Amino acid sequence: MKWYKIFTPELKELIESKNLKGLSLLLREIHPADIAEIIRELEPAERVITLRVLDKTKMADVFSLLDPEEEEELLGFFTESRAKTILLEMSPDDRTQLLDELPASMVNKLLKLFPIEEREETNILLNYPPESAGRIMTTEYVDLGTQITVSEALEHIRRTGPDRETIYTCYAINEHRVLCGVVSLKDIILAKPDQKISQIMSEKIYKVNTTDDQEEAAKAIQKYDFLSLPVVDSENRLVGIITVDDVLDIVEDEATEDFHKMAAIQMPEERYFRAGYFKQLSGRVGWLFVLVLASTISGKVLQKYSLALSSIISLAYFIPMLMGAGGNIGSQSSTLVIRALATGELALRQWWKVLVRETCAGFVIGSVLGTTAFFIAIILLHNTLLGVTVGISVATVVTVGNLAGAATPLIFSYFKLDPAIVSAPLITTIIDVTGIIIYFEIARRILSI
Amino acid sequence: MKWYKIFTPELKELIESKNLKGLSLLLREIHPADIAEIIRELEPAERVITLRVLDKTKMADVFSLLDPEEEEELLGFFTESRAKTILLEMSPDDRTQLLDELPASMVNKLLKLFPIEEREETNILLNYPPESAGRIMTTEYVDLGTQITVSEALEHIRRTGPDRETIYTCYAINEHRVLCGVVSLKDIILAKPDQKISQIMSEKIYKVNTTDDQEEAAKAIQKYDFLSLPVVDSENRLVGIITVDDVLDIVEDEATEDFHKMAAIQMPEERYFRAGYFKQLSGRVGWLFVLVLASTISGKVLQKYSLALSSIISLAYFIPMLMGAGGNIGSQSSTLVIRALATGELALRQWWKVLVRETCAGFVIGSVLGTTAFFIAIILLHNTLLGVTVGISVATVVTVGNLAGAATPLIFSYFKLDPAIVSAPLITTIIDVTGIIIYFEIARRILSI
Repeated sequence: MKWYKIFTPELKELIESKNLKGLSLLLREIHPADIAEIIRELEPAERVITLRVLDKTKMADVFSLLDPEEEEELLGFFTESRAKTILLEMSPDDRTQLLDELPASMVNKLLKLFPIEEREETNILLNYPPESAGRIMTTEYVDLGTQITVSEALEHIRRTGPDRETIYTCYAINEHRVLCGVVSLKDIILAKPDQKISQIMSEKIYKVNTTDDQEEAAKAIQKYDFLSLPVVDSENRLVGIITVDDVLDIVEDEATEDFHKMAAIQMPEERYFRAGYFKQLSGRVGWLFVLVLASTISGKVLQKYSLALSSIISLAYFIPMLMGAGGNIGSQSSTLVIRALATGELALRQWWKVLVRETCAGFVIGSVLGTTAFFIAIILLHNTLLGVTVGISVATVVTVGNLAGAATPLIFSYFKLDPAIVSAPLITTIIDVTGIIIYFEIARRILSI
Repeated sequence: MKWYKIFTPELKELIESKNLKGLSLLLREIHPADIAEIIRELEPAERVITLRVLDKTKMADVFSLLDPEEEEELLGFFTESRAKTILLEMSPDDRTQLLDELPASMVNKLLKLFPIEEREETNILLNYPPESAGRIMTTEYVDLGTQITVSEALEHIRRTGPDRETIYTCYAINEHRVLCGVVSLKDIILAKPDQKISQIMSEKIYKVNTTDDQEEAAKAIQKYDFLSLPVVDSENRLVGIITVDDVLDIVEDEATEDFHKMAAIQMPEERYFRAGYFKQLSGRVGWLFVLVLASTISGKVLQKYSLALSSIISLAYFIPMLMGAGGNIGSQSSTLVIRALATGELALRQWWKVLVRETCAGFVIGSVLGTTAFFIAIILLHNTLLGVTVGISVATVVTVGNLAGAATPLIFSYFKLDPAIVSAPLITTIIDVTGIIIYFEIARRILSI
């Protein structure tokens, strides 16, 4: 798919030979998303030249596809007036996202250059809470009066359409800008020219509020297969739309967020390089610190069994196996449950079904792994009783660990806590500690120490 | 968002009182996606009644939103002719997906009922490899001759549009059905009525082949913000399209697949309940078995240090802390790298940037955790030399573990292996074994045993 990379050497040569006309012709044939990827391979000075030969719409398109830090760097190379041109050409949602990440002083300087109308609009968008529907919506939608005819609507779409983010779903509003209906371009095309919009629009409207979480908007678009979703204010007035292409990014970002949480990483930003280095570090060290403290409990428990341990030192050899098996099975069952909850496949009221399923699964897998552990111990130490101890312990720990891994996210979900966040810290600690207790209690009985 | 649930009791009452007219009126107001969710709460007999009162288009829509096992169960309640009606009304991609999961005998029985044309089409779609673009595409697209005018095109769209999955992107083909251009409905609406399609279409076509992986189609739609993507055969003839709503499901499924892989689960199916119970079990036990075998190495290494261990038994207390810290930091850095590779943010050629970044990060986090471990050991055992041993060991293991976690997925990616699959098994084993060796080598030197 990366065929566009073949252009990079040609592009570099054109820049070096200062053949701006040839450069402009070459770039006209390339999609903005590909230009953005090619630009990443260039030196800063080359980037500036490449961007400059694009027409202003394409320049804004390419620009909005770069990462905020790349955008910030490039803005430094531009004159104020060019920076203004690019920003004004960007769609409102992309502009908000960029300004959101720039230093406040730079934002203020740039905003002062804006015409009063755009400045106010941008300020409004910047004031919605982060990750809210208002923050990611665009204000470039098609609105239609309910009383106009289909042919008037088509005329209106022809006139205003080129600037709009989508024309395929139009929104019918009354004189107070209150959202009254939804009508697709398909309905308009298939209708008779003199029909009124109010006759063909659907009054069943799915919408979100500006302050709703972006994930809610994403879920609605995903569930109902919409191309866009209207965003209204508290008085039900239409203020923006969220389009399906933004939802793709949200779905991916939310998945990344869950990946990070499950690896005990707490980060405000999903991208690896985009997240500030020290923010990333502090987001990682937090839970690790808690986990190190928590592992003190396992140490304390081992200390309690130090007599048993010192009389049969070989018991220690199997601690890694025991902890590994328990931790791994717990991470399996918790991942299955957390992911099924996140995609909406599993509802909390099905908890008993999950627990029955996982109890049986733990038992079966525990038997397999326990038998394996039994043979390993016998081969390693030629001691049947120790083999039995290790085997029964692994089987028990796996069964318990599997159940704990499945139950913990359900319990967290019941208390309206994010199930993804719990996995690593809590489950590992529970399984480690109970694992060691189970092991030594079984050892005490079987090996009579 | 679950407002539609308020209808469930009313619906049940209407079914009980056999008020089919009222039921039909109520359901007319509800979106197919909501009806599908309501239906899940009903008894099988109630489900059949609910589906029956829907008109056939809506019935097919609702039906295709259910899970294959639910669909199979319901099909058993229907007469052959009704089953045929529903299946023929479904869009070709949904139909393929359903038939794909039904038992072969049932598929053959159903296919025999189909008209010859649909039977052949379905057979063709079923023959593309699983997870390929051909398997998920739909054949309901709008194609336009390159030589027709804009007004003729609009007339064609008006006539055929109602049956098509999308009319917003149309595909221009020549007399051999070879794909020549792409034209959006927006371009058509904005063009003059007598312009030819060949004049307004774009000849820069992004497309996939029937045998390409579905993920490739998803990536293109995501990158270029398309509403649909054409699928061509080996002779560049247009055979289908993939729409953005299918891509949302693919993105989510691919994320789930990675979640499972990283928890050492190998499953052919992403859904928790949909996956057969025994398939899920065998998919889980495989890697766990390997991991138990691998932990034998840690046991063997511990055995080598049994003299040191038996002379200072308290060294054992910190094995859980050491293994925990190493495992957790490794899972953090591997998750960051695997996820950044999966979303395309990180390219393999940036490997040195990642390694530098993670070496420093490991060192900083290692120092913090090592200091913590030092104090914990001193508080627990009042032994400074043991505290120093534990502190240095934790710091070293964390630094090494962080680097191993970041490097392993990069190495796998270099050899074109899936980086997600490696995380659990390999990284844990590497970190466990090196962790124990580091710990006891440091202990031998500092505590002179």
